[in-house]
Amino acid sequence: MRTLYDYFRSSAAYRVRIALALKNLPYEREHVLLLENMQNSQTYKAHNPQGLVPALEEDGVTLTQSLAICEYLDEVYLEPALLPVDALGRAQVRAMALSIACDIHPLNNMRVLRYLTQTFDVTADEKDDWYRHWIDVGFAAFESHLSRTAGLYCWGDTVSLADVCLVPQVYNARRFQYDMTRYPRIAAITEQCLSLPAFHLTSPEQVSS
Amino acid sequence: MRTLYDYFRSSAAYRVRIALALKNLPYEREHVLLLENMQNSQTYKAHNPQGLVPALEEDGVTLTQSLAICEYLDEVYLEPALLPVDALGRAQVRAMALSIACDIHPLNNMRVLRYLTQTFDVTADEKDDWYRHWIDVGFAAFESHLSRTAGLYCWGDTVSLADVCLVPQVYNARRFQYDMTRYPRIAAITEQCLSLPAFHLTSPEQVSS
Repeated sequence: MRTLYDYFRSSAAYRVRIALALKNLPYEREHVLLLENMQNSQTYKAHNPQGLVPALEEDGVTLTQSLAICEYLDEVYLEPALLPVDALGRAQVRAMALSIACDIHPLNNMRVLRYLTQTFDVTADEKDDWYRHWIDVGFAAFESHLSRTAGLYCWGDTVSLADVCLVPQVYNARRFQYDMTRYPRIAAITEQCLSLPAFHLTSPEQVSS
Repeated sequence: MRTLYDYFRSSAAYRVRIALALKNLPYEREHVLLLENMQNSQTYKAHNPQGLVPALEEDGVTLTQSLAICEYLDEVYLEPALLPVDALGRAQVRAMALSIACDIHPLNNMRVLRYLTQTFDVTADEKDDWYRHWIDVGFAAFESHLSRTAGLYCWGDTVSLADVCLVPQVYNARRFQYDMTRYPRIAAITEQCLSLPAFHLTSPEQVSS
């Protein structure tokens, strides 16, 4: 019995949906409606004191933090591996994943955007500029990193944890009308990933909200 | 030959200094002076396109992202291990580490604070409120998590990657006059860690700037 506490548009939750799909693991979805603030309910916080999605409950144990969940799935369900076998390769893939998970996504999630508009009174345009700024800074470095590592995917010709993080971030960027032509390697890898059912069928447009 | 691209007050760099010290690995320090914007120099960006510290150069290869570096060190230099042996334990420790590395620290680093003051014209007081807000939200959840996992350290009685992330974050909190008495478990674990040379001798006050 496996339950994903999920929100269709959460890019951290989308990462876990991709990882579960790549490993062909069945699960039930429990909807945590962020627009209704369900992530801060007592019921949900009993699962995840951080009040963030996703969380994954497996055999009665609840795991949190999307990258920790993906690493767990990768350690317990070996095929297909989300990390290279060699330590240097693993470090490179993790660094790419973390450059999105630490340095782009947390700056742009809902609770932060709410703080900006509600406490600092920033306008909608200023908020959008902020959103695109951190994507831009992050993607510029990511594109540069790809020049050293990429093949069909972020790490050679094998899907990895870096792709699992990249595709949801590109989804977010497109929602904010971000011009992806500036980063042709990122755009090409994203298209390649989205040709795979594990990325396509788990995308926010495809799953029920 | 191992070189750490370091800044004494960077809490991400402090994490790597702790990990290197725990594993008793020698290294040279290259100072990347953030106040002089050296992280954005062409020289440094050749090492790390993200323009963030730390980076670790080992035998000519440069690794980035502090958690990826710590995981690399843990895979190559086994003792003492920074992660438990079982997958569930590893997931819990990684989740604690990531709750700091993703959900507190990136919101409070220098480039973000500069954006707030320079683009949104927030006052010094408003900036400090922002800084403490994200610490508060993150530490409240971390303290709750500790009630299920902690012993002398975040994960039982063994030092782990969670402690490696926690202590630098507490250092930052104290710099901003954050009242740590609200979180007695975090405060006690931090004191315990700082009684160890690997945490104490690598702290910003102890290393040269």
